[in-house]
Amino acid sequence: MFGTDRKDLATELETMLDMAKTLFVQHVREGQNADQAVVKYTSQNDLYKVIDFDLPNVGKGVDGTFELIKKTLDYSVNSWNPRFMDKLYAGTNPIGVISEMLIAVLNGNSHVYHVSPVFTLMEIQVTKAVGELLNMGENSGGLLCPGGSASNLLAMFTARNKLFPSITKTGYLPRPYPGAEYGPLKIFTSISSHYSIDKAAQVMGLGTNSIIKVPTDSCGRMRVDRLEILIRESVDRGETPFFVNATAGTTVLGAFDPIRAIATVAKQFNCWLHVDGSWGGSVVFSNSAVKTTNWLDGSGLADTFTLNPHKLLGVPLQCSMLLTPHKAHALFAQANSLAADYLFHGNPYDLGAGTIGCGRRPDAVKMFLAWTFYGRQGFGNRVDRALGSAADLTTMVRNRKDRGFILVKDPSPFLQVCFWYIPNHLSNHVLHWEAQGNYTANVSLVTKMLHLRLREIGEFLVDHAPLDSLPHFFRIVINSPTVSVERDLAGLLDAIEEAGKEIEWDRVFG
Amino acid sequence: MFGTDRKDLATELETMLDMAKTLFVQHVREGQNADQAVVKYTSQNDLYKVIDFDLPNVGKGVDGTFELIKKTLDYSVNSWNPRFMDKLYAGTNPIGVISEMLIAVLNGNSHVYHVSPVFTLMEIQVTKAVGELLNMGENSGGLLCPGGSASNLLAMFTARNKLFPSITKTGYLPRPYPGAEYGPLKIFTSISSHYSIDKAAQVMGLGTNSIIKVPTDSCGRMRVDRLEILIRESVDRGETPFFVNATAGTTVLGAFDPIRAIATVAKQFNCWLHVDGSWGGSVVFSNSAVKTTNWLDGSGLADTFTLNPHKLLGVPLQCSMLLTPHKAHALFAQANSLAADYLFHGNPYDLGAGTIGCGRRPDAVKMFLAWTFYGRQGFGNRVDRALGSAADLTTMVRNRKDRGFILVKDPSPFLQVCFWYIPNHLSNHVLHWEAQGNYTANVSLVTKMLHLRLREIGEFLVDHAPLDSLPHFFRIVINSPTVSVERDLAGLLDAIEEAGKEIEWDRVFG
Repeated sequence: MFGTDRKDLATELETMLDMAKTLFVQHVREGQNADQAVVKYTSQNDLYKVIDFDLPNVGKGVDGTFELIKKTLDYSVNSWNPRFMDKLYAGTNPIGVISEMLIAVLNGNSHVYHVSPVFTLMEIQVTKAVGELLNMGENSGGLLCPGGSASNLLAMFTARNKLFPSITKTGYLPRPYPGAEYGPLKIFTSISSHYSIDKAAQVMGLGTNSIIKVPTDSCGRMRVDRLEILIRESVDRGETPFFVNATAGTTVLGAFDPIRAIATVAKQFNCWLHVDGSWGGSVVFSNSAVKTTNWLDGSGLADTFTLNPHKLLGVPLQCSMLLTPHKAHALFAQANSLAADYLFHGNPYDLGAGTIGCGRRPDAVKMFLAWTFYGRQGFGNRVDRALGSAADLTTMVRNRKDRGFILVKDPSPFLQVCFWYIPNHLSNHVLHWEAQGNYTANVSLVTKMLHLRLREIGEFLVDHAPLDSLPHFFRIVINSPTVSVERDLAGLLDAIEEAGKEIEWDRVFG
Repeated sequence: MFGTDRKDLATELETMLDMAKTLFVQHVREGQNADQAVVKYTSQNDLYKVIDFDLPNVGKGVDGTFELIKKTLDYSVNSWNPRFMDKLYAGTNPIGVISEMLIAVLNGNSHVYHVSPVFTLMEIQVTKAVGELLNMGENSGGLLCPGGSASNLLAMFTARNKLFPSITKTGYLPRPYPGAEYGPLKIFTSISSHYSIDKAAQVMGLGTNSIIKVPTDSCGRMRVDRLEILIRESVDRGETPFFVNATAGTTVLGAFDPIRAIATVAKQFNCWLHVDGSWGGSVVFSNSAVKTTNWLDGSGLADTFTLNPHKLLGVPLQCSMLLTPHKAHALFAQANSLAADYLFHGNPYDLGAGTIGCGRRPDAVKMFLAWTFYGRQGFGNRVDRALGSAADLTTMVRNRKDRGFILVKDPSPFLQVCFWYIPNHLSNHVLHWEAQGNYTANVSLVTKMLHLRLREIGEFLVDHAPLDSLPHFFRIVINSPTVSVERDLAGLLDAIEEAGKEIEWDRVFG
C-alpha cells in the first residue's frame, strides 16, 4: 500500500471515482425524493452499534473503505433534501462537488503564489468582484477565511493592528498603564449579532466586558441613536471605542442593521466599521428586489465586510470572505504579517502573509467556479426565489393563526420564518401559565417537545431558538433552491400540527 | 439555472462527474510521469493572458466551466509529481480525493451533532486514537482545526482560559494593573519554532514581546538548560510564564525538541506544555524506527499537541488536530464556550462549542477514511520510506562535496535535507566575499539564482530558506510516497548542477 514504489495511483483513482459516483449520485437522487427522510434519527449509542468506528492496524483497502462510506451516507443528514431547513446553509450543488474535487486533486494551498498560481488569482479576482458589487470601488478585494467567525476575527485583528500597531509588539496595555496611548478598547455590536464577535474579543484578550451591546428596534435592527449615546458614554468614561460591528442578516431573525447611518456614527468616533454579512451579504446578488438594495445601503463605507457564499449561495462549506475597500492585500499584509522568511520571499501575491494562519484552503475557487457556472444572475435568481418562498411561508403561518400558529415577527425580516405553535387544546394551559408566571419556560417546552418529535420522524430537519426574553420558537430557514411551497412548506406546518397531536401533553405538563 | 424548480441535480452531477473523472485521472497520470514538469512556470501577467478571470453575468454552464477547470489543471502545480518537494505537504492520494467528495456531497458541518452525527463520532474516535498513540491515555481526544496555526492558537487560547479564566471576561490586565492576579504572561519557544506561535501571541493581545525565544543546540533542538534559566529569570522579573511550546519537527531543519525534559521544567513552573507536532507528530505512526520513539518521548505529558495529517500522511489540506489527554471535549467546551443557545442546546457531542469558530469543516473524516484505507501500518510504511529516502539524499549530497555541495546539518535531523551548492567555478568568488565580509548575502544570492532557474524550468519544485544568521540554502522536503532515489533525488542534484552551468554568473556578480 503506502510505501511501495510506483503504484499506479491514476488507475486506483479511476476505480474509486466510479464507485463513488454510483453512491453519491444515488444519495443526491434520494435527497430530491420528497418521500425520503432528511435523516435516519440515530442516537450516539445506536450509531456506535451500527457503524464500526474502530481504526484498523492493517488497512481495509477499497472495499472495506467503501462499505464505511456507504454507511456514512445512510446515517448522515441528506442536505440535498429541501426539507433540511435547520441551519443557514443548505445542500450544495453539482459544481460545488466538482470544485471540491478540483481542490483535492491539486491539494491546493493558497498561502504562496508559486504553489497555487491559478487559485491565487481566482481569489484576488473573485474578492475584487464581490467588493465592487458592494460598492467598495476598484481598490476592493479580500481574503478567504475558514468560516464567518474566522473572517470576523481577522477583521477585528486587522482593525486593532492598524489603529494601535504598538499592541502587536507590546501587547494590550490600556490606560491606566503608564504611557498608554489608549483606554480600554471597546466594541459595539447589537444584542442580536452573532456570538463570534464576543468570541473574537475573548480571543484577542479584550474580554467580553469590552463588548457593548446596542439595543435593537422592533424589527431586530440596531438602534443607531442608542449606538451614538453608548459610544459617547464610553468615551466619557475614558474608554477607547475602536470597532463597530453592523450585522447584515442576523442569525435568528435575519434583521439588517442600517449600515449607512451606523457608518456616520462610527466615522465620527474614528471607529473601524465592520459589517458581518455572513448570512445576508449575499443579497447583493439579487436581481430585482429594491429592498435588498436598501438592506445593504452603505456597504461601500465599511472598512471590512464578511460574506459567506457557503450559506445563501450554495457553495460548499467552508467559503467565507473578508472584503475591504482599502487595497485589500496591502492592508492585510501590512497590518498582520510577521517576517517568516522561510516561507514568504516578498511576492505581493503571497496571500497567506495577511492572514492569521499559514497554509490555507483555496476556498475562493469554489465561489469562482460557482459564479462561472451560474453567473451573477443565477445567484440572483436563487436569492430572489428564496425571498419569495419565505414570504409565502410567512403568509401560510399567518393564515393558520386560528390553529395555534403565532409569528414572532410579521412580516419576516428576511429568509428566516420564526413562529410558535401552541396546539389549541393547550390554550387553557397557556392561560394558566400566564397566571402562574411560568409562561416562557412552558412555551419553550412546547416548542422543544414538538421539535424533538419532528427530529425523531426525520422527515424535516428544522431548529428552534430563543431571542432576548422570548420563549423558544421555531426558526425555519429558507435557502434550498428546490424548496416547494406546497409540498415542503405547507407540509412542514402540517407535520408540526401532527406532532402536536401525537405528543402526550398530559405527561409533559401533568 | 438556479431558481427554477425541481431540476434533476442527480443527473447533472452524474454528467459532471464523468467529465471530471477524465480530466482528473489524466492529471494524476501526468503527475506520475517523470518527463512531465511539476508546473508550467507562469508569471501573474502571463497567467492573466492565458486564463479569462472575468466573472460572468450570465452563467457559462457545464461546458464553459469545464474549459476553465481544464486550464486550471494545466497551469497549476502537479503535486502528484514526486518532484514537488517544496513544502511540508506533498500530493494527496485517491482516498483523499474521495473523502473530500464525501464531505462535499454531504456539505458536512461538524459544529453540532444533529447535522453531522457520523462525522462527529469519527472526529471523536480518530482524535482519541491518535491521542492514545501519543501515550495520552484513555481520556485523550481532540478537535480538528483549520490548519496548524489555528490548532496552535486554540491551544494557547485554551491554556489562557483554563489558567486565567478571568481574562475571558475582563480582558488581559496584568500587573501593575491594580488587583491583577498575574504578571505579564510569557511564552517560551525555541528560536526555530514556527511563526504561528508568535502570531497566536499577537492575536491574543500578548504581543510578540511576550515571546521568549530559547536557543537551540547544534542539531536545532531547544536547549532545556537555557529554558529553565529563562523561565527563572522571567519569574524574577515579576512576569508570569504560562505557556511552553516544544516543537516536534521544526519547519526548516526538522529538529525535535526533547519533550520529556521540557515537560519537567514546564510543570515545575506550572506552565501549560504544548507540543507543535504539525510536521513531526506523524512519526508516531512509524512501524520500525527506534529513533522516532525517542523523538516523541514524553508526548503523553503534553497538555495539548498539534498534529497535521495533511502534511506527512498525505491527507488533503486542511487536516490539523489539536490533541489533549484532559478529557478533550469537556476541556475545550468548558474553557472556551460562550452560551450561544440559538445553536448549542446542551448536547456534549456538539464539538463546535469548544472551538474559536462556529460552522466547521469535518476534516477529521479525511483522516478517519485514510486510516481505514491504509491502516496504521500503511501510514507507518509511508513515514519509514520517507526517512529512508531522506537518508539516501543526505548521503548523495555528502558524496558530492567535491562538486560544491555542502550539507547544513549532517546527518539531516529528519525529512528535510538542507544544503548549499556553490558551483566550483564560483569558489574564487567565495574567498573574495569572505574577505569583503559580504559572504552571507552572496551565498544567499547564489541559492536564490539557482532556485529561480529551477523554478523556470519547472521540472522540480523546491524551496530555499534562511536559518538564524546562515545564508539561504536549499530545503528539500522528502514526503511523497512515490519519490525515487535515483530518478528524482539524484536527478534533482543533477538539475541544480546544470542550473549552475546555465546561469551567467558574471552578470550576477559582475
